[in-house]
Amino acid sequence: MQLGSIEAGGTKFVCAIGNEDYRTDNRVIIPTTTPEETLSQCIAYFKQYPDLKAIGISSFGPIELRRNAPKYGYVTDTPKAHWSNTDFLGRLKQDLDVPMAWTTDVNGSAYGEYVVSTLFNEKINSLVYFTIGTGVGAGAIVNGKFVGSMGHPEMGHVRLKRHPDDLDFKGICPFHGDCLEGLVSGPTFEARIGKHGHEVPMTDHVWDIMAYYVAQAALQETLMLRPDKIIFGGGVVSEAFLVKVRAEFTKLLNGYVDVGNIEDYIVMPSVKENGSATLGDFALALKEYNK
Amino acid sequence: MQLGSIEAGGTKFVCAIGNEDYRTDNRVIIPTTTPEETLSQCIAYFKQYPDLKAIGISSFGPIELRRNAPKYGYVTDTPKAHWSNTDFLGRLKQDLDVPMAWTTDVNGSAYGEYVVSTLFNEKINSLVYFTIGTGVGAGAIVNGKFVGSMGHPEMGHVRLKRHPDDLDFKGICPFHGDCLEGLVSGPTFEARIGKHGHEVPMTDHVWDIMAYYVAQAALQETLMLRPDKIIFGGGVVSEAFLVKVRAEFTKLLNGYVDVGNIEDYIVMPSVKENGSATLGDFALALKEYNK
Repeated sequence: MQLGSIEAGGTKFVCAIGNEDYRTDNRVIIPTTTPEETLSQCIAYFKQYPDLKAIGISSFGPIELRRNAPKYGYVTDTPKAHWSNTDFLGRLKQDLDVPMAWTTDVNGSAYGEYVVSTLFNEKINSLVYFTIGTGVGAGAIVNGKFVGSMGHPEMGHVRLKRHPDDLDFKGICPFHGDCLEGLVSGPTFEARIGKHGHEVPMTDHVWDIMAYYVAQAALQETLMLRPDKIIFGGGVVSEAFLVKVRAEFTKLLNGYVDVGNIEDYIVMPSVKENGSATLGDFALALKEYNK
Repeated sequence: MQLGSIEAGGTKFVCAIGNEDYRTDNRVIIPTTTPEETLSQCIAYFKQYPDLKAIGISSFGPIELRRNAPKYGYVTDTPKAHWSNTDFLGRLKQDLDVPMAWTTDVNGSAYGEYVVSTLFNEKINSLVYFTIGTGVGAGAIVNGKFVGSMGHPEMGHVRLKRHPDDLDFKGICPFHGDCLEGLVSGPTFEARIGKHGHEVPMTDHVWDIMAYYVAQAALQETLMLRPDKIIFGGGVVSEAFLVKVRAEFTKLLNGYVDVGNIEDYIVMPSVKENGSATLGDFALALKEYNK
């Protein structure tokens, strides 16, 4: 069975063809320019596959994902030039007559990791997927379903207890200043110490400060959702960083609830090279097809 | 159909008999002493009703609610004298041969409010119920189901951005100091200003500080779960206090996501006099019976 995936990002779209075993057979990268240009190229790509049965789409946002909303399938008020108020799903449906699943980029990744857990026979029914890169976002699955009945989560914008050595930093979120994204997204390295994140050695104290905040985000998810695991992806994250995050998390939690083995609880994505979303898209496409 | 409810609290148990329309027909209060004494009195109460079909129990905790756990139905490590490691559900089942639903006190209240919303034809499928009293706890329903696959939420213990006028207060949580519970539970009035909460007029600045923290808890739930509404109950909460909470919440959210009408979003319980849990217990008992 041929299934399609669109990972729609702010700089590029990754379109892929795979099958019901979630194997990727073909993959193409399309730059994100205007909606008409980019979406036409997606359509042309999938038109090459007349046996295509369904497409899973995980998109940058904010997007409308309430099925009964008039603008279901739209990218709504986004800072990304040209894309505000774009009927993304509607445009695809004009030219492609297959069922389509529609969700956020982080939900797609979360679902991919959820499916992989199931394949690995882990007993998982709830998880959270964070991405920490240019921005910070999270997708969550509870009892096998996405969280968010009024819209998708925006976990990047929670407030946190400030680190005592970081009180002078105002944060860089244009909406909230020192919310999670304003304190730990990639561009905060430039703002705090004038360097790119990848130039800053793990011994620099700024990583301890970052770990303190990211651990609080993990703590919030833990105390609110009691998920089976929390996954951190995105350019800022490395295994060495998660070692620090786990240590801070353990201190903050102070044994209050049982999260099992911390090494299996706060983890990097199982699917390498950002492949979680493609896999999640195939699985969501299959689910949509079987509806 | 006769259904039973047990609201098990740290100072008293409220046992009730009602029906499938959630009307309470009889109600009795039993003081919380030792497990054997208190649970025997519960059993004796329900023995009077030979037509009883099922019981819903919402209990103080922490409790074990994972059905496949060896200690399912236990009150686990509680500070409440005599009650640690009590097989609550097992003791009842020894003498009462009916299906029993088992959940936390706040989940019972959350479910009661959820059921009431449905009766009122509100389109609700996710909500959060907070109680702010001697302690702080929350129950959450997402897509019609309780949240918490590794155990129940412990939202009372998240960390928060501190109010600039409250930086000297260390908080009173024995586990975490200045977590949510350590900053806003009822006993914090004594700790901050040496008075009981009900002696402190709403014009006192301490209420602004409290509102700032409670609004952050609402913000966390909003950005993480995107629920349809957030309900605040418990002795600390009043409509006048929620007016302040809504104002702080609106400032913190800064229009980032749409929560609809704020007056319908951050609310007191619909069921008065702490009756949400009894109603929730009846509904959970009915659900258990129909399984």
